Amino acid sequence: MNFNEIAALDKADPLANKRDEFDLPADTIYLDGNSLGALPKTVKSRVAEVVSQQWGCHLIRSWNDHQWIDLPTRVGEKIAPLIGAAKGQVICCDSISVNLFKLLSSALSLNSQRNMVLSTEDNFPTDLYMVQGLSNLLGPELCQLTLVAEQDIEQSLNDKVAVLLLTQVNFRTGQLLDMQKLTKLAHEKGILVIWDLAHSAGAIDVELDKCHADFAVGCGYKYLNGGPGSPAFLYVAKRHQANVKQPLAGWMGHAKPFAFDATYQGADNINQFLSGTPSVIAMSALDAALDTWQDVDMAKVREKSIALADVFIKLLQAHPSLIDLRLCSTEDSSQRGSQLAFAHTDAFAICQALIERGVIADFRAPNILRFGFTPLYTSFEDVWNAVTILVDVVETQLYKESRFNLAGKVT
Amino acid sequence: MNFNEIAALDKADPLANKRDEFDLPADTIYLDGNSLGALPKTVKSRVAEVVSQQWGCHLIRSWNDHQWIDLPTRVGEKIAPLIGAAKGQVICCDSISVNLFKLLSSALSLNSQRNMVLSTEDNFPTDLYMVQGLSNLLGPELCQLTLVAEQDIEQSLNDKVAVLLLTQVNFRTGQLLDMQKLTKLAHEKGILVIWDLAHSAGAIDVELDKCHADFAVGCGYKYLNGGPGSPAFLYVAKRHQANVKQPLAGWMGHAKPFAFDATYQGADNINQFLSGTPSVIAMSALDAALDTWQDVDMAKVREKSIALADVFIKLLQAHPSLIDLRLCSTEDSSQRGSQLAFAHTDAFAICQALIERGVIADFRAPNILRFGFTPLYTSFEDVWNAVTILVDVVETQLYKESRFNLAGKVT
Repeated sequence: MNFNEIAALDKADPLANKRDEFDLPADTIYLDGNSLGALPKTVKSRVAEVVSQQWGCHLIRSWNDHQWIDLPTRVGEKIAPLIGAAKGQVICCDSISVNLFKLLSSALSLNSQRNMVLSTEDNFPTDLYMVQGLSNLLGPELCQLTLVAEQDIEQSLNDKVAVLLLTQVNFRTGQLLDMQKLTKLAHEKGILVIWDLAHSAGAIDVELDKCHADFAVGCGYKYLNGGPGSPAFLYVAKRHQANVKQPLAGWMGHAKPFAFDATYQGADNINQFLSGTPSVIAMSALDAALDTWQDVDMAKVREKSIALADVFIKLLQAHPSLIDLRLCSTEDSSQRGSQLAFAHTDAFAICQALIERGVIADFRAPNILRFGFTPLYTSFEDVWNAVTILVDVVETQLYKESRFNLAGKVT
Repeated sequence: MNFNEIAALDKADPLANKRDEFDLPADTIYLDGNSLGALPKTVKSRVAEVVSQQWGCHLIRSWNDHQWIDLPTRVGEKIAPLIGAAKGQVICCDSISVNLFKLLSSALSLNSQRNMVLSTEDNFPTDLYMVQGLSNLLGPELCQLTLVAEQDIEQSLNDKVAVLLLTQVNFRTGQLLDMQKLTKLAHEKGILVIWDLAHSAGAIDVELDKCHADFAVGCGYKYLNGGPGSPAFLYVAKRHQANVKQPLAGWMGHAKPFAFDATYQGADNINQFLSGTPSVIAMSALDAALDTWQDVDMAKVREKSIALADVFIKLLQAHPSLIDLRLCSTEDSSQRGSQLAFAHTDAFAICQALIERGVIADFRAPNILRFGFTPLYTSFEDVWNAVTILVDVVETQLYKESRFNLAGKVT
């Protein structure tokens, strides 16, 4: 592949114009939007307006006058079309961890004859921790975590399993699980499924309703670009909403939050899954970031995501000097999310050297170098340049310099 | 009392210079800082810097380089001296509702021979809802809520009670409970106490350590001025930290959050009470707001808070036309927080008319008009002017005009 071919890909890219909607630092190739999305320009002005005008000038009145009170619903409804959900099923609130606790409790209560939560050994740790926390609270007779390898999920579905908890795209390898197939197989065994969309919402064309999904959680600060620690979201299929009671029964989930009743009566819709008061500034940032998505076709996002990663692999494979970078992600793009993982003994040092050279990737212990591809603001030229720099870092052995080999914090 | 006396009070006020640190809208007298604090000027620049520089330019690297990862601890340690807590006991995270769930579970597990959570009928609803949510999850044999009137707390302390859940300052009446006495009485009966400081942190001189408090939660967006829906905080006395496991076991509470272990091992310090990733923008706003407090003596805050409310009452009582505004707060300032409540048949309409005239108070169903006094930015002249306008609204019967009598939303 030569540079002319790369330029042709950018020229033909239907999403190329989206890049202008982001503030990206000069001299940086950002391949870590799977960890923290870049800053949409519209967020800057929105946050300034919320702080100075809505809060500073209008003060308490903004709860009504600027509809702060409806933010969780409004933001949820903006996320819904990106993950294939019809109205009334998605709401923005809390963190993924806290939302998982709500959904795990809900799903277990719907399947109370069983106690097993099945998940994968390589699931994102906080997901497993939340099951362990619930298990510790309820006791193993009511909630028991069982872990299996990703390839053993199907054969582990049986009538002891209450809830299957899966992350659609593996945070390390980028392995994409088959939501439609696994949900169907689980349902056949009477199992409810919770999908974690942390690495898929905004990256691939998620189809929750079409897959008859039960529950899902997802992240605002990765591909959705809502800012560091942006509020998360959750999805509960309409058919389950009136049948569950989630335990974090805060005032915002009350059927009549302003009646100030002493007795909790959860809303019979998605609002029940709200708990305490959310940060208006943080949620407004995500709200503004979501405007960037309004004219975006998720099928085009998926198409470009695959093309970016395929080009990256192709360019890498053309360089014999990169032979020690072992691809841990599948080459089958239909089974991959929007990131690539490579194992290398010196992954940490290579990552640090790349960052110094302006290519931001990330490292995951013990030896993984991760590159994320965010179709809204990553170009094929970025991929070309990143590989050029990676080749240089490896061929010149720049990464062997002592400053890159410090034991660093991992983010 | 005449205006000269008012002016003299402002002149002698040691906190008078703090007002310049806030952005307050012109032509507004803001007496609702007990609901949403005003905007500290420093927050505007900090939020802009976090969004544009830390996030926009420095991207993922800011987790280390701008110490995002330590924000919950750093902010907690800034709050600690305002509530009489030594280091290592306060952390900033989640909402009050979610934090109450963590502490209720923790306190019940320490007192597992008992199942009763005792609280007051007039406690803030979300506090009661969280107990109900936990009770629904665990079953009444493990968690059962009992409510009594505020005046019956003492006589209700017995060896069936596991946890006493109290809000130090009543959200409606401003009634201040005696933290020292009630904590001591509770401990004598083997009861653990959770204090909700929503209406006291930043308003009165809270002394958690001195009162041998066990647990507390509090709010960032009222007197601490962290912005709408600002993250909350929690306090766990050192002596309890290694003996409890809170159930919302997210990755940030892990002893080694970056080890990515599949098994949760909670930190043996206050960090265990963290759960998921917090909003960096929202928590940075609170962090900046807390800088305003660094040279503030809480004893002076308490003194001025009492003086402001006393002057308000005195001025009101000098006007016979205000006889129908019945004070529901105690006149004994030692038993009062930093707000006053008045009952009036037309409280809603009076509140609306006041707001139109630039005096922002708030309404609490069914018939309460609430005035909050925030010593950092409220002057005695504000109080004088507010009463003047209130007198005018009542004497001219302005509030009887139809536009003020719409059934409005309550915030």
